[in-house]
Amino acid sequence: MTTVNDPAVSLSDDEIFAAHEGGKLGVDVTAPLSDAKALSIAYTPGVAQVSRAIADDATLARRYTWADRLVAVVSDGTAVLGLGDIGPIAALPVMEGKSALFKRFGGLDSIPLVLATTDVDEIVETLVRLRPSFGAVNLEDVAAPRCFELERKLIEALDCPVMHDDQHGTAVVLLAALRGAATATGRTLDDLRVVVSGAGAAGVACANILLAAGVLDVTVLDSRGIIHAGRAGLNPVKAELAGRTNLVGRTGDLGVALDNADVFVGLSSGTVAEEHVARMAPGGIVFALSNPDPEIHPSVAGRYAAVVATGRSDFPNQINNVLAFPGIFRGALDVGATAITENMKLAAAAAIAEVAAAVAAAAVRDGVLRDS
Amino acid sequence: MTTVNDPAVSLSDDEIFAAHEGGKLGVDVTAPLSDAKALSIAYTPGVAQVSRAIADDATLARRYTWADRLVAVVSDGTAVLGLGDIGPIAALPVMEGKSALFKRFGGLDSIPLVLATTDVDEIVETLVRLRPSFGAVNLEDVAAPRCFELERKLIEALDCPVMHDDQHGTAVVLLAALRGAATATGRTLDDLRVVVSGAGAAGVACANILLAAGVLDVTVLDSRGIIHAGRAGLNPVKAELAGRTNLVGRTGDLGVALDNADVFVGLSSGTVAEEHVARMAPGGIVFALSNPDPEIHPSVAGRYAAVVATGRSDFPNQINNVLAFPGIFRGALDVGATAITENMKLAAAAAIAEVAAAVAAAAVRDGVLRDS
Repeated sequence: MTTVNDPAVSLSDDEIFAAHEGGKLGVDVTAPLSDAKALSIAYTPGVAQVSRAIADDATLARRYTWADRLVAVVSDGTAVLGLGDIGPIAALPVMEGKSALFKRFGGLDSIPLVLATTDVDEIVETLVRLRPSFGAVNLEDVAAPRCFELERKLIEALDCPVMHDDQHGTAVVLLAALRGAATATGRTLDDLRVVVSGAGAAGVACANILLAAGVLDVTVLDSRGIIHAGRAGLNPVKAELAGRTNLVGRTGDLGVALDNADVFVGLSSGTVAEEHVARMAPGGIVFALSNPDPEIHPSVAGRYAAVVATGRSDFPNQINNVLAFPGIFRGALDVGATAITENMKLAAAAAIAEVAAAVAAAAVRDGVLRDS
Repeated sequence: MTTVNDPAVSLSDDEIFAAHEGGKLGVDVTAPLSDAKALSIAYTPGVAQVSRAIADDATLARRYTWADRLVAVVSDGTAVLGLGDIGPIAALPVMEGKSALFKRFGGLDSIPLVLATTDVDEIVETLVRLRPSFGAVNLEDVAAPRCFELERKLIEALDCPVMHDDQHGTAVVLLAALRGAATATGRTLDDLRVVVSGAGAAGVACANILLAAGVLDVTVLDSRGIIHAGRAGLNPVKAELAGRTNLVGRTGDLGVALDNADVFVGLSSGTVAEEHVARMAPGGIVFALSNPDPEIHPSVAGRYAAVVATGRSDFPNQINNVLAFPGIFRGALDVGATAITENMKLAAAAAIAEVAAAVAAAAVRDGVLRDS
């Protein structure tokens, strides 16, 4: 199993902790405060005019406050990266990192809000009370299956974009990557047999978006093996999924599922054995996306698969939500969207996949191709 | 009555609104994100090491997150400047301004949290749930008498500094200013008869800090006149105050109270008539502190008083909380204080007053005095 102590990665604890000293965020003042007049404008008495105007016409808040361009990055710390339920305080460095990515890749301001409650209704209630403070909610690192109920209730309760990034951000980049890998290997989506290992937040959302995008044969596994309609004890989310996946009724473990499969999507926080990957069809695709530890080291997977990717930025071929969530929230906030729809997610996946295709087409047009 | 349209102020609506376009705050990334390695450190996989460390030892959050140096600027929008109950969204520009001042004058990061509830217990509950996200609470623009109960319950519920700035920030700068004005007019605090107009958040806190600092004769008025122990219908806060102020038992209106008084402290969001100020003792002190509109124009008050000040940054002699709250929270957070005590507030007032005294003493030592 790959760990961050893998010599190939070359990140020392010293440099990691030094970079986190004091946290990773600050608040920046965008209005001038350089002299007494500027102070009179940004605070009393000037600001009173702005407050009066918004009191008369609440839509002006969109123009004269930061709220409508501010993302709340919300977590209860119950499913942090692959580390599990480590609590809100330990989750905060990840949320600060998320805010840093929002800024760096989407030009969006965001604030981490980590919660000392894991009760779905209490979290919803808290964000409803804070609603005037932000313009969108990025849910993050909330454990399944609670995350499904939480996202659903938040979407109902809030009149602004809400997205659980571990579900839909992952699903969008997975779909984009699969489109790219299919093109690279001369396949089409409806032609691929896909195995998704992991039925948590990301696994369920990925299965859903693959089906929505036209993949016909999707099999999902949880820690107890293949999910199928006949299996007892499925929670409601998995039972619903069983009705739309694995239509041929496979049963058994990951080795059975991968036998002659075209695509492995790892979202399990677990591992996949080399001999199981070896059973995949020739020219396969391995996306070992668990963080921080991919299900299989990419150099091992590469012995069997034509395309290999992980979720990590320090291996080649990264599939990471950072390709999707900054643009999704940026687009939603820029037009004042009140929700993030399935079509908005599919549009994001298509646009991300289009980047590589557009660059390849331009290379062909410019004739800068290697002799084959 | 002075308004921001007073020609003397020369702030145009155009320049005020232009300065507020898009709001006044942004989030700044303080960790490098310049290349793939930096990204690997600040987000996955590197950040997992930091989260693991904090999960093992929560005290490390103080060092490796921004929370312990972050102030939540919290308001329900019920008493915004002198504008009253204009609601949380209209209050947001003021809270953004407050955050800007925290940054500019205290080097402190803060986030505005405006709440769509005015229920004391719901506000407390909300902040308890958000507790891992911040290191201190600056309560702002919450109406009296609810603000007293809210502050008390928050202090009980949260193990971090909590201060209602409209009460204690105002009280600290008022005390500092009164010390300065007393020195300038050759008086001592125990020698002054002080009238406080306004028994809201600021009025009550100012009366309290003046008594704590040694002022013997304090009379407080609300909209119904002088508060005295015999008055019917006082709320619990005012009834308690009546037992410690106005010991000679004055009754009546502001004119009666100001008759031969040495100090007028205006915290009423109302006005004081010129003929009432004219009844004060010679060499008096007028602090007309309501925002955005002082109780009396300083040029009018100056006809009768030796020292005149307002709360506004666009008149000379400003008494504004901005002199106090950045340093109070900065000091409290720097040492990891769990509360803001009465002694911390008195220390702040003494230090602020000391600035002018220290500069004057240095001028005397350097002999750069005008011939008198």
